[in-house]
Amino acid sequence: MTTSAKTAATNAPGELAERFARLHDTPALVLPNAWDVASARLVEQAGAAAIATTSAGVAWALGSQDGNAVDRDLALSVVARIVAAVGVPVTADIENGFGESDDELAATIRGVLHAGAVGINIEDSGFAPLRPMAEQAARLRIIREVAGRQLFINARIDTYLMAAGEPQDRLVETVRRSEAYLAAGADGIFVPGLHDLQVLAQLVAAVPAPLNVLAGAGGPTVTQFADIGVRRISAGSSLAQAAYDVVSRAAHELLTGGTYAALDRTLDYGQLNALLAPPLIP
Amino acid sequence: MTTSAKTAATNAPGELAERFARLHDTPALVLPNAWDVASARLVEQAGAAAIATTSAGVAWALGSQDGNAVDRDLALSVVARIVAAVGVPVTADIENGFGESDDELAATIRGVLHAGAVGINIEDSGFAPLRPMAEQAARLRIIREVAGRQLFINARIDTYLMAAGEPQDRLVETVRRSEAYLAAGADGIFVPGLHDLQVLAQLVAAVPAPLNVLAGAGGPTVTQFADIGVRRISAGSSLAQAAYDVVSRAAHELLTGGTYAALDRTLDYGQLNALLAPPLIP
Repeated sequence: MTTSAKTAATNAPGELAERFARLHDTPALVLPNAWDVASARLVEQAGAAAIATTSAGVAWALGSQDGNAVDRDLALSVVARIVAAVGVPVTADIENGFGESDDELAATIRGVLHAGAVGINIEDSGFAPLRPMAEQAARLRIIREVAGRQLFINARIDTYLMAAGEPQDRLVETVRRSEAYLAAGADGIFVPGLHDLQVLAQLVAAVPAPLNVLAGAGGPTVTQFADIGVRRISAGSSLAQAAYDVVSRAAHELLTGGTYAALDRTLDYGQLNALLAPPLIP
Repeated sequence: MTTSAKTAATNAPGELAERFARLHDTPALVLPNAWDVASARLVEQAGAAAIATTSAGVAWALGSQDGNAVDRDLALSVVARIVAAVGVPVTADIENGFGESDDELAATIRGVLHAGAVGINIEDSGFAPLRPMAEQAARLRIIREVAGRQLFINARIDTYLMAAGEPQDRLVETVRRSEAYLAAGADGIFVPGLHDLQVLAQLVAAVPAPLNVLAGAGGPTVTQFADIGVRRISAGSSLAQAAYDVVSRAAHELLTGGTYAALDRTLDYGQLNALLAPPLIP
C-alpha cells in the first residue's frame, strides 16, 4: 500500500512528477479530492490514479477557514500522512502558497516536497480579487526554481470562480494568464467555476497544456468534459461538503428526534479498519 | 465560540468536569460523536451540550486503525483543536489508554488534561478479549490519581461488545465490573453493544452511576433509552462511518460513471467556512 514513499526514496528526482504528468493524457484524470487519510484511502480504493487534496476540506477538518487561514505545517502534515498511506501519486492544494513573501512561498514548496507530494495546485485569487498576473507569474518562477522537475505545477486561474472583471473579458484574461503562468513554469492550468462547454472548448484550444476543471452537481458529466478535451477533472471540496452534510443531518436528527435515519447508510466499521491497516509493504 | 479554553483557564480545577457531570442528569445526554474540528463544530451547531470524540473516527482520519494503533500525541492534538474550537465541554475517547505501562497511561491522562478535555472514555477490551477486572480497576485508580477531579471518567465495559464469556453470565459480569470500576474512581459506566431494553433496565437499576449506551440504526430510539433511565447516549463511530460512506460512493460514481448523484446533498461552502471562522471572543 505505501509504495509511493518507497518509490520516492529510490527513484530519480522528477520521475514521480513525470509519471503523474503522464496521467493527464487521455482519458482525463478524474480526482475526487480527499482531505484526510481515510478519505484518501477510500478514493484510492475507488480506483483513482492519483490523490488530490482539497484545501477547504483540509482546513475545515483542522479547524480553519479555507483561504490563507490554516497553519502551513499542520496542512502539510496531512499531505505527508496521505502520501504515507496511499500507493498512488499525491498532489497538494496549497491555496495561494501559505505565505506572501518569496521566502515563505519557498518554505511551502520545500514542505510539499518533504511531504512527498508530486504536484501542487496554487491559485491566483485572494486579492482584490486576483493577484496581478506578473506577480503570480513571479511566484510560479520561484516555485519552479525550488521544486525543479519534482512537482507538477497546476496553476489555478480564478477569473471565473471570482467573477473577476467584466464577463466579456474573462476568456481573454484567462488565456493571457495561462500563457504567463505556463511561461513561468506551470505544467497545467486549472480554471474552476466554468461549466460552459463551448467556452471550455475554446480554452482547451487556446491553452497548450492540460486543462483542469472543477466538476460537480448540476454541471457537465466527466464524459462531456473529456469529450471536449479537458484533461483533468476535480471534485474540489464537494466530497467533504457531502460528508459533513451527513454529519450535520445525523447530529440534528439524533439531538432533536432521537432517531437514526441519516445513519442508514454507513461504511462497515471492520471495512474502514481494514482500509487503514498497517502497510503490507514494510 | 471558544469560551471553553478561556473558562478552563479561569475556573477552579474540577469545575468544568463537574459541569460536564451535571449534563448526565435527565434528560439524557446525547452525544453524536465527532472526529475532527469540522464535525465537532457541526455537532455543536446542531445543539449538542458536549462534544465526545470517537476514537475510531480520529484514528481513521489520521491514517490508523481503531484500537491501540494511533499515535497518542497526534490523537490528543485533535482533541486539543476541538477544545479550542467549540464552546461546550469535550470528552475524549482514549481507547484503552494509549499505552500499557502505568507511566504511559499517566502520560495519556496528562495529555488529555493539557488538551483541555473534561472527560474520557476508557475501555477494558483489547485483550483476550477483556482485560482482567482488577487490572482495569488499577488503571482507573491511576487515572483518578493523575486527573484529580478534573476529568469525568467514563469506564467502558466491553462484555457485550466483545461477546465475552457465556451469554448468560454477561449481565452479572458487567455489574461486577461496574462496581469495581466505580470503586476505583470511575464516574460513569459505558456498555456498548447492548440494545435489549429489558437487560438495560436491569443494568440501570444495578449501576449507581450514569449509564451510557451506544445508539444506532436498528436499535432503540433515544427516547426509548432515556425512558428506562439511560443517562448518556453515544453514536460512536457511526457519523464518521456515514460520512466516509458518502465519500466512497461519490468517488466510485465519479470514477466509473462520471456523474455526481452522491453529491446531491452537500453543506454549502460558505456555510462551512463561516462555521470555521476565527473565534469572535479573542
